[in-house]
Amino acid sequence: MAEALRIGIAGLGTVGASMVRMLQDKAAELTRQCGREIAVVGVSARERNRDRGIDLGNAQWFDDPVALARADGIDVFVELIGGEDGPALSSVKAALETGRHVVTANKALLSRHGVHLATIAEKKGVLLNYEAAVAGGIPIIKTMREAMAGNSVTRVFGIMNGTCNYILTRMEAEGISFEDCLKDAQLLGYAEADPTFDIEGHDTAHKLSILTSLAFGCRISADDIYLEGISNITQADIRAAAELGYRIKLLGVAQKTESGIEQRVHPTMVPIGSVIAQVHGVTNAVAVETDYLGELLLTGPGAGGNATASAVIGDVADIAKSRPGFQHGPVFGWPAKQLLPYRRARMRSHEGGYFIRLTVHDRAGVFAAIAKRMADNDISLESIVQHGDATEDAHKTVILVTHETTEAAVRKAVDGIVKDGHLVDKAQVIRIERAA
Amino acid sequence: MAEALRIGIAGLGTVGASMVRMLQDKAAELTRQCGREIAVVGVSARERNRDRGIDLGNAQWFDDPVALARADGIDVFVELIGGEDGPALSSVKAALETGRHVVTANKALLSRHGVHLATIAEKKGVLLNYEAAVAGGIPIIKTMREAMAGNSVTRVFGIMNGTCNYILTRMEAEGISFEDCLKDAQLLGYAEADPTFDIEGHDTAHKLSILTSLAFGCRISADDIYLEGISNITQADIRAAAELGYRIKLLGVAQKTESGIEQRVHPTMVPIGSVIAQVHGVTNAVAVETDYLGELLLTGPGAGGNATASAVIGDVADIAKSRPGFQHGPVFGWPAKQLLPYRRARMRSHEGGYFIRLTVHDRAGVFAAIAKRMADNDISLESIVQHGDATEDAHKTVILVTHETTEAAVRKAVDGIVKDGHLVDKAQVIRIERAA
Repeated sequence: MAEALRIGIAGLGTVGASMVRMLQDKAAELTRQCGREIAVVGVSARERNRDRGIDLGNAQWFDDPVALARADGIDVFVELIGGEDGPALSSVKAALETGRHVVTANKALLSRHGVHLATIAEKKGVLLNYEAAVAGGIPIIKTMREAMAGNSVTRVFGIMNGTCNYILTRMEAEGISFEDCLKDAQLLGYAEADPTFDIEGHDTAHKLSILTSLAFGCRISADDIYLEGISNITQADIRAAAELGYRIKLLGVAQKTESGIEQRVHPTMVPIGSVIAQVHGVTNAVAVETDYLGELLLTGPGAGGNATASAVIGDVADIAKSRPGFQHGPVFGWPAKQLLPYRRARMRSHEGGYFIRLTVHDRAGVFAAIAKRMADNDISLESIVQHGDATEDAHKTVILVTHETTEAAVRKAVDGIVKDGHLVDKAQVIRIERAA
Repeated sequence: MAEALRIGIAGLGTVGASMVRMLQDKAAELTRQCGREIAVVGVSARERNRDRGIDLGNAQWFDDPVALARADGIDVFVELIGGEDGPALSSVKAALETGRHVVTANKALLSRHGVHLATIAEKKGVLLNYEAAVAGGIPIIKTMREAMAGNSVTRVFGIMNGTCNYILTRMEAEGISFEDCLKDAQLLGYAEADPTFDIEGHDTAHKLSILTSLAFGCRISADDIYLEGISNITQADIRAAAELGYRIKLLGVAQKTESGIEQRVHPTMVPIGSVIAQVHGVTNAVAVETDYLGELLLTGPGAGGNATASAVIGDVADIAKSRPGFQHGPVFGWPAKQLLPYRRARMRSHEGGYFIRLTVHDRAGVFAAIAKRMADNDISLESIVQHGDATEDAHKTVILVTHETTEAAVRKAVDGIVKDGHLVDKAQVIRIERAA
């Protein structure tokens, strides 16, 4: 049998501890599958003496992850520190430059420095694997890097944040407000004390930026993502969505258009009969559309210590199976130096259907004025629903679902309606996404 | 750049022709991703002069696929002939024994001879890749072989036959009979002139047998699969399923139980709100449950020339990226010689919920007699629905949904009800499957 694959793990939080546990628990299976043992020979974390409920065996302790990354006798450096800069970045760079393979679960790091790190990895001929960085246990990186060879991707989209999907699922199931759901999610540990990063879509954006690069062979550009979170989604939206045959999900979407690449994260209406609409709670799902293969949808656990550790170990196992001389595909599907500049499509040119919910004064001519604004902007309507407002007799709710139109047209029409002075509240605009 | 990977393709039907077309159309992308060109240097098919609308370039023609498999200058032999024996088997064996990598889309061949072929491949140190053999374009083989390293699988199940799913989808959507749906599916090319192989579940069984081996590290045993097709599913079943919150799908299921491994293919009630219940038409879906990773569900195109060719090319690309000395994981996840004997769990010991539809004479005491038979066999009921029979005044329909029980108990209870003489028609029994 080949010599053991020697790994160093930096970061012993939930994922790191799960990983150490799984490596011990499944040592025999892994050795059989990989044809060699996987041995943890070094570890690093902030606090040496914390009880993590794991047995670190004979692994050498390093206070400094950079020293671990460079240590003799390490074949693979596993980065589970987190954060886009700081020790995560410096240790991953040190490992790659020293000629070590790297496995990371760090989406923020890759989103910011992925192309630079890929360039080093490819120059040094080592692997940079990151299955756990996007959608946890779902093998979307492997699928896009390896299972779609030769395919041209037209669109990739998905539910990539468990916190948001948990909140939206409970809002629909229990009829409770966003704020109450968020509080509960925090109590149950599904949302952070400061939930901004999740609920405003930043986490999804990091993940999406990585998939965009894989999908279209372009450089990662996380700053060019149109971003809207879920904090302004109300029960009125959720009820109206159901009434019209939709369900609201926070999606990250990247697609190729004539004017460039659209990257957007926003609450989205998906058809209630679609597969992705059935993805509930903290589960994640990613869909990829290509020319030859068609549409794939992968659903599974997007977070959690065991699922994430499992994805990290899958990446390590791929390295364990490889031998010197093996050329894995490039880190982002295309060689890092050949990645195209990211060409952003303007959000105003986005084409799609729209859901528009308006709360208006109940007086003559309002509806005609709204209809005129739509017609003036060449927006044709698929459905129109009008309700009395339960809380205020003098108000009415008007819900419009448009046929395919442009973001620019919708913005202009809504601006016009605002100017007409009929609205009593901010207009709610939610994009509709095709989904099988 | 490394030398071109030279492939020989045996079989130029729909998939073979799509493959040749895609290799030409996407030559530049594939070369960039693999670091070398993929060149078709030899082909073989039954009729040399048929117009397939493809350009075979300088590929050498072989009348005999075995000669192609053994030809000098071939690195990879692609078998797209089909059939479990005959030229498919002899050419794949010849290729492996000559030390060529093999890619095949042939589920029947693997289902029957997979372990034997894997043994040869592993002895010769060559790859035997077969992504396209199960669920077409869905990367379930790659996921199970590579993305779940170290995980123990508890259950794998899925919709793996597009013909059956198409028929069941249309039966539900349009309220038409099985026979009419089948006729339409045949006209549209979704079903064969002799549809037995698909509708009676044999095709699903072939695919399931391969997944079972991957899931549980056991030898392939396609003959030990409990089999029920969809030809006796009626509109009454479909309507009753909907009423009770279920949808009927033909599933292949393999799971580990205390008494061994269950492999079964049968019409199945899945919760209507589950993701897999939303998989419509010819689309396929496969779910895998493991201890660490949790549950993954992959959906996508299960057939079609382009999707299948894309999966075959993904397998070829994996070989193109590999270099001498690379040790891929074993063909079925575990080394072929270490695969365990298949230990069959008896169907009578299957545990689960059951849907039972009975058409009975409308007379006093019938319902009490049915309830007694259930109670006598310790079967507790989740729901009971009773309808008049639309076509016959003197008949009533009784639908029972049981809590978890055993196949043996249900069979005994139904036998008892038959003996009681209250049934006017055969009892319909459909198993219920948990699904997220």
